[in-house]
Amino acid sequence: MKATRDGRGIVYLVGAGPGDPGLITVRGVECLRQADVVIYDRLANAALLAYASNAELIDVGKEAERHTIPQACINAMLLEHALAGKVVVRLKGGDPFVFGRGGEEAEVLAEAGIPFVIVPGISSAVAGPAYAGIPVTHRDLACSFTVITGHRAGHVKDPACDWRRQARTADTLVFLMGVHSLPAIVESLLEAGRPPSTPVAVVQEATCAGQRTVTGTLADIVEIAGGVRSPAVIVVGEVVRLREKLRWCEEDPLPQGIGRPAPALA
Amino acid sequence: MKATRDGRGIVYLVGAGPGDPGLITVRGVECLRQADVVIYDRLANAALLAYASNAELIDVGKEAERHTIPQACINAMLLEHALAGKVVVRLKGGDPFVFGRGGEEAEVLAEAGIPFVIVPGISSAVAGPAYAGIPVTHRDLACSFTVITGHRAGHVKDPACDWRRQARTADTLVFLMGVHSLPAIVESLLEAGRPPSTPVAVVQEATCAGQRTVTGTLADIVEIAGGVRSPAVIVVGEVVRLREKLRWCEEDPLPQGIGRPAPALA
Repeated sequence: MKATRDGRGIVYLVGAGPGDPGLITVRGVECLRQADVVIYDRLANAALLAYASNAELIDVGKEAERHTIPQACINAMLLEHALAGKVVVRLKGGDPFVFGRGGEEAEVLAEAGIPFVIVPGISSAVAGPAYAGIPVTHRDLACSFTVITGHRAGHVKDPACDWRRQARTADTLVFLMGVHSLPAIVESLLEAGRPPSTPVAVVQEATCAGQRTVTGTLADIVEIAGGVRSPAVIVVGEVVRLREKLRWCEEDPLPQGIGRPAPALA
Repeated sequence: MKATRDGRGIVYLVGAGPGDPGLITVRGVECLRQADVVIYDRLANAALLAYASNAELIDVGKEAERHTIPQACINAMLLEHALAGKVVVRLKGGDPFVFGRGGEEAEVLAEAGIPFVIVPGISSAVAGPAYAGIPVTHRDLACSFTVITGHRAGHVKDPACDWRRQARTADTLVFLMGVHSLPAIVESLLEAGRPPSTPVAVVQEATCAGQRTVTGTLADIVEIAGGVRSPAVIVVGEVVRLREKLRWCEEDPLPQGIGRPAPALA
């Protein structure tokens, strides 16, 4: 299939959403259905590949902590297939522009003169807390939220990422890819003056069948979340308290609560 | 249609996305298709209502600046229809938990013992900048972003929302519903010490056919954006500079650039 009227290829940078395959967009599905090639990450739910029944599927297995295939290689693949006139879908977990390196991939395409389209995805930064019953904003509790890459938050001496200043200020803080950095994050927040009683939630495998949420405070979350594995979303702020009332997709008591799918429509 | 096996109603709080009807989720469409009643906001794209061909449609016309129908009334409608055993979809612009008052609606449902499900939506906080060619994060430029309700940012003396402290700290700032408060926002950012040369973009009707983006700096954006109307997304930070290279869905030169739909698949 030719990608565009003039025979040039095109690349769709598509957000796969946070894990629940129902959270991809209608546009994202359209792109997968018409793709010649799909280059996908490990974080993108593999069930979505069923939409791309006519496409060549290329697993580049990129995870937060480990790049199986170097980014330069992924960039080269995008160029190669687009220059061959293909409709290429680059399927990325979450949203392409939220710590997804989509900006870097778009830069490479722009420099090569290849048309590209951004198809946003639902980020686990908002959907992860939502599936745990935590609104990141709430009229009485939070009029802002900050999303931080916890992967780098652990590098507390990284001058390019002095997120600790935000610790004193934002209503709700959401850390993505931060489970390994949780002790460093908590220490920095306490040093910055956040009270030890500040509520914290850690949502493992957010929006997936294995979703599990633990809650605590800055004083005890490191101990409570000891068994939580990556990927996980960390939420800090008063909105975490709403979970007690608003939890809707995990029925078992904490901290062993296992997620279940949303109630089925009749 | 009965909502659940035991005949109780159920409410789906569904994010309609930022405006482009292709950006609703697959789950959102499923909910609309099975709805008995859809209670929708003005900000939700009306084209989405075509999915709900079997449902009673109720326009509650809620806008950022004007609530045609009071929130208490909307809450009462949700309860009334759910208690009558209906499948109710509450369709909200963007994401239900990002300044959507979805948390308040969920609280009302939880207190009444009515099952509810959150279906996240794409927020214009990320998709608005993305459609203007601006990634809210970028490896070299921003390792965090903060989303603030500009509606309240204008109330600079609102002690519950002292977002100005964040002005000094976050990499990328995104203000939603802030076009009327732009002068107050700029003044506060300058007072907080952000350089006048800090890049700013204002994206009007983001992701819609009428999308239009103007860019400038804290020094001149108030003048440049004089003709911009609500709804608009304001982006502040170095990532705005990437638009020059990454703009993909507006072809005309600034500041009169009018959005066009994404390149069509062949």
